Order: sequence, then C-alpha cells, then structure tokens
Amino acid sequence: MALLTVLTPVLLLILCMVIGFMLVKPRETKTDTRPWVDDDLQDGDDVLEEDECVDSQGSEEDHPQVPYSLQHYSEETMLQRSKDFYKMLKQRRSVRFISPEMVPRDVIDNVIRTAGTAPSGAHTQPWTFVVVSDADLKHQIRLIVEDEEELNYRQRMGEKWVHDLAKIKTNWVKEYLDVAPYLILIFKQTYGILPNNKKKTHYYNEISVSISCGILLAALQNVGLVTVTSTPLNCGPRLRLLLKRPVNEKLLMLLPVGYPAQDATVPDFGRKPLDEISVYM
Amino acid sequence: MALLTVLTPVLLLILCMVIGFMLVKPRETKTDTRPWVDDDLQDGDDVLEEDECVDSQGSEEDHPQVPYSLQHYSEETMLQRSKDFYKMLKQRRSVRFISPEMVPRDVIDNVIRTAGTAPSGAHTQPWTFVVVSDADLKHQIRLIVEDEEELNYRQRMGEKWVHDLAKIKTNWVKEYLDVAPYLILIFKQTYGILPNNKKKTHYYNEISVSISCGILLAALQNVGLVTVTSTPLNCGPRLRLLLKRPVNEKLLMLLPVGYPAQDATVPDFGRKPLDEISVYM
Repeated sequence: MALLTVLTPVLLLILCMVIGFMLVKPRETKTDTRPWVDDDLQDGDDVLEEDECVDSQGSEEDHPQVPYSLQHYSEETMLQRSKDFYKMLKQRRSVRFISPEMVPRDVIDNVIRTAGTAPSGAHTQPWTFVVVSDADLKHQIRLIVEDEEELNYRQRMGEKWVHDLAKIKTNWVKEYLDVAPYLILIFKQTYGILPNNKKKTHYYNEISVSISCGILLAALQNVGLVTVTSTPLNCGPRLRLLLKRPVNEKLLMLLPVGYPAQDATVPDFGRKPLDEISVYM
Repeated sequence: MALLTVLTPVLLLILCMVIGFMLVKPRETKTDTRPWVDDDLQDGDDVLEEDECVDSQGSEEDHPQVPYSLQHYSEETMLQRSKDFYKMLKQRRSVRFISPEMVPRDVIDNVIRTAGTAPSGAHTQPWTFVVVSDADLKHQIRLIVEDEEELNYRQRMGEKWVHDLAKIKTNWVKEYLDVAPYLILIFKQTYGILPNNKKKTHYYNEISVSISCGILLAALQNVGLVTVTSTPLNCGPRLRLLLKRPVNEKLLMLLPVGYPAQDATVPDFGRKPLDEISVYM
C-alpha cells in the first residue's frame, strides 16, 4: 500500500508526459515547409529530404530573356478556332475497344513531342514516355495488370464475388492491352540526380506529368486515335521492373493507343454544362 | 495519503488506456484501401473516411453502352495533323508579360468548355474554374499572392535577403495579376456531397484536374492566348475564402490569361528532345 502511495506521483508524471507527447505529436508531423513555389509545380507530399537539394538551374534569373510573340488572331477567328477545338475534344471519350490496326510510328513520335511541351516545376520536364509495341511485352504487361485488377475486385467485392463473377470478369479482363498497337506508359520522375550525385527534388512532378498527359490526350484526339486513361495503382513497381525504369521513376498512367475498333462502344455519359464547372466574377 | 492510494489503480487504468489508444491509432489511420481503380484517377493521399462512401454512379456497369466512332484519317493526313499540332504547342511558353487588351468572353467560355472534356476518376469531373475579370477582385488576389510570395522569398533567401533585394523584388511582384484581363483559378473538388449528405470521395481529383489544365493550356494556345501555370501554394485558403468557394474545393492553379504584351520576353529555355523523354520497346 505504501508502495502504491509512492507510485502515485510517478504514475501521474508519466500520464502527463504521455498526454503531452500526444498533444505535441501532430504539430511535429505537419512540418510547415514553405519552399519556393512561384510557378513551380509541387506535389502535396513533396518534402525535401536531407540528401536532396534544390537545383537553381531552371530558375528565371539564370537565363537570358528572349522576345516572345504569338500570332494575334482577329476576334472572329479566335472564336471560330475556340469552337472548332472544343468540337474536336468534345468527341474524346475513354475507349476500351481498340483496333489492332497499326498506327504510323511517326505520328506517335509527334504526339509524344507535343506532350513534352507541357510546363513543369522549375522546367524539370520530369516525364518518361515508354512506348510498347512488342507483342510479348504487351502481353506481360497485361498479365501484371489483370493480376492486380483481379485482386482489387476480389477485395472490393467480398461476398458478392461468387455471384457476380460473370459480370465482373468483363471488367477485369483487359483485352485492349494485347490488342492496341501501342501502350504508352507514363512515368513521373520523382527526383533527378545532380552531377554531385545528390538528389534533385522535382517539385510538382505529379501535377506536371498529369498536365503533360492532358496535352497528350488532345494530341491523340487531333489525329483520330483513342485511349483510356488508366492508373494501374498497384502494378507500378512490377511494371517499372519489367520495363527496366530507374528507381526515381514511378508509373503514373498507362494508355493503350490505337484507332477505335469498328464495334467500339462507350458508356452513355454526359458532361457537366459550362455553368456547373465555372464561376465568373 | 489514503486518497492517493485509492487513486493509483485508477491512474494505472487511465495510463493503460492512453497507451493502448496510442498503439491502436496509427493502424486505424492507414487503412489499406484498394478501391476499384481501373480508369479511375486517384490521388496518392486519398483515404476513405468513415463518413464517406464510394458512389457507384459513374461506374461502367450502370450505364448503357452507345456506339463510338471517330474520323479515320489517312496516314498522310494524320502525320500532317500531328506535325501541325506539335508546331502549335511547341510555341507555348509560360509568359509573365500579359497585355491588358480585353479578350472576348465567348472565347474564354469555349476554352473552359474544352478543359471540361478531360477524363476524371469515376467521371466525377471534380473541377471548378473561377474566372475573375473584376479589377478590384484581381487586385485583392494580387495582394494575397504577393504577400505569400514575399514570405516565401524571405524564408528561402534568409541572410542573402537584404543584399539581393532589388533582384528578388522583380520576382515576387506579380504585376500580371492586375494587368491580365482574366485570372482563371482552378479548384479541385476533393470530395462531393451525396443526396444523403455523406461525402463522396473524388479519387484522383488532383491528377484529373491537372489533366484538365493541360487541355486548357492547349486550348489557350490554339486561340493565341498566353498564361503562366502558377501554383500559389500557401494562398489557397485565403483565395478560397475571398472567392467564396466551399470547403471541399482546394485551389490547384492560378492562370493569368490574355494576349502576350508587345514587349513580352521569356527565359531562353530549350526542351528535351524526343529521345530523352521516350523509350520505345
């Protein structure tokens, strides 16, 4: 009993420390970094590690300025061009039924060059476009993707699994990964390597690569090709190894590319009208 | 003393509960969700909260399929179109010197409609484009952005601050926020609200909105307008309040839009050639 009495203040102290620790912890984990972020593009989870440094290359101050001009269209022409461009892209849909018909390689080259014109954080251009046309390699990619998709389905569907098997199967089987003449796998370079072997943070790499993907989608539509923008979340590491990409690259998107199949269908979706996606002030 | 003795077991119990709570907590926060992610686009940090549910709306199975076709160009035409499109977008640069000349509102409408054709996770279309042309509001936005930029600079530059003031000032002053006829603030909707008032997770909202931004950049270039893709990281909350956007929206990008100024300049950057951004297999 005397021991207990002695212990009480000790226990009180420990309790206070533990509670204090709990209160302090959340503040510590949320380090309020304020890196230089003018027009750089930074991912929400980018944090400078100790062995990384921000390279000053690509910053405005180090480069001479050159004059910039652009064709100034009449208002009438602008309006017509804006309508035509909208009309073209309005036709874009995520298409899963792709024709095996071969597509000229030069066209794919130009589409990727176009994607490479996207802006990026500190002009790091943190993208790698892996274009797969080899039948064996496409099939290996398909096996990896379907393997993970099946896992996704099983875990998501749980008990309904057995009953809905037939319905589900049509979703997890990705025939287009074999059929499409090209698979474009878009990797984001999460960091670069400086000459001194230190890591160079690529701020906003995911946003930058996604912007680049948007431009790529427009370029595909412009030449009459289709794709479906897929993000095979859990396949990234396996596909990275298969395609022998370095550790600083992470798979962001996988796009099967080709002409639409003759009997291609798409779900009967609509899009939100202008007044639902915009506010003018 | 007797009171202390009585308290000891109680304190022990509380201590055990607190420690137990601490041990259990981390496991709860990292729920290993494997949602269905075929062509959905999910941000890395998306986690389903308890009061959220995944809406089945937008999933393939619930919508009837309709035939899809697209103009099939000759190989020659495709190649020419791919070249022309690349040539157009190759001219795109981040331009900070914007003319005050007014731009037809109809053109901006079509540019935003075009951005709204982007694919999105589960077809959530999680974007809001706030277009500001009001001079007072533009100025308030400028004040907020410059305020944060100055902070960024001060913290980044540290001791060099005083010496480099003149040089730095040109970077943190964002005259174009007053001058550009339009500021387009792109918000990502991190979740939606279902009819039952539950939150509906918007998987991949950041990637989806970034893709949409890429298409918007292409649409601007197509009509001869310029912008600079900026991500005013720390200004998000203040700008959200200023523009009266709801709590589920987060500012992703701020784009001043207009014709390039007569004396506009850009840094003398190059872009990586095709063989540095692509691998063919």
